[in-house]
Amino acid sequence: MSSITLLGTGNMARTIGTRAVAAGDTVEVMGRDRSRAEQLATVLGGGASVGTWGAVPAGDIVITALLHDGVAPVVVEYADALADKIIVDISNPFNASFDALAHGEETSIAQKVAEVAPAGARVIKAFNTIFRNVLEKGRPDVFIAGDDQQAKTEVSGFVAGLGLRPLDVGGLTMAHWLEGMGLVTVGLANNGVGHWDFALGADEVSAA
Amino acid sequence: MSSITLLGTGNMARTIGTRAVAAGDTVEVMGRDRSRAEQLATVLGGGASVGTWGAVPAGDIVITALLHDGVAPVVVEYADALADKIIVDISNPFNASFDALAHGEETSIAQKVAEVAPAGARVIKAFNTIFRNVLEKGRPDVFIAGDDQQAKTEVSGFVAGLGLRPLDVGGLTMAHWLEGMGLVTVGLANNGVGHWDFALGADEVSAA
Repeated sequence: MSSITLLGTGNMARTIGTRAVAAGDTVEVMGRDRSRAEQLATVLGGGASVGTWGAVPAGDIVITALLHDGVAPVVVEYADALADKIIVDISNPFNASFDALAHGEETSIAQKVAEVAPAGARVIKAFNTIFRNVLEKGRPDVFIAGDDQQAKTEVSGFVAGLGLRPLDVGGLTMAHWLEGMGLVTVGLANNGVGHWDFALGADEVSAA
Repeated sequence: MSSITLLGTGNMARTIGTRAVAAGDTVEVMGRDRSRAEQLATVLGGGASVGTWGAVPAGDIVITALLHDGVAPVVVEYADALADKIIVDISNPFNASFDALAHGEETSIAQKVAEVAPAGARVIKAFNTIFRNVLEKGRPDVFIAGDDQQAKTEVSGFVAGLGLRPLDVGGLTMAHWLEGMGLVTVGLANNGVGHWDFALGADEVSAA
């Protein structure tokens, strides 16, 4: 069982929170608008609690369920309140036409977060390749990037507890490519796959 | 049935050529070292022919089965001999430690090829996310990027003929992210998956 705090009260917070409550995890919700956090905690049930925006999160794993351009600013705002926490960035920094990354650099939101995170915080990229509808109803692979092995082990335990397969792809620089895989996933939905009920996964090979 | 020319005589040329011959495709091999091309054609069998390096390829689809830093130079060398051909770049421009792209820019080998390709040539990125051993024995998804829809349709037909699933991910700028997925695939092999008998694919979602 894991102890998580969701920063944000939107669709992804609800989706991850729902699975976490179902898995028996301890879930805390923090929203800048406290009433929305309370509303989400009520929807989640399972003893989900509400924390004060900006205060030290109760969860060991803090999931920033925010729009991509809000993630690093919120980590700056929280500052030392996130010391020693595991920060999980799930964002997709798409540009307006969903065909390139908005930051246009050889970086990622997760790496930007690592640059501003307080002492002891460890940053993980995860979940971003999975459409919300898939996370709601499926068992997709969850690709995880990060530099701290212990943090990856903890997040992997959380992911496995949700009934999903965690797959470590390597260090935090790989977050850039996971964000690119988010773009490829959208590209597949709009082109070769033609629908949104799929996720990229690592498929074992059987003989042809 | 497709008509392909393989530029190169290495492992990937042999692997793709073997599947193509088995599928009944017309296969031509071109190598800078003609004796190696003749050797590969003999190994492939199925009436595989040998072309002269630098001459107009017999195949409609020209697969550059070359190391990444050789692809654009060879396209420059062939020049107008590739006019109106479909050029399929399958390369992975990994750096020496296999954790970043060697070109370090917001581009891809496929896009570099498109910059130097002759009139009428259409460039496609495909196959690069698939380990050779998987391409030998499995039925992996083949991600395809390119700007020309007709060329993508032809390459998709070739891929489907090999018994693999072609999946269009979008325009040629997506080649950058497919090259990144090559890195992620290596990262998975070295980390979360722990072996090389898998490929990234688009997995349909069933209810959890």
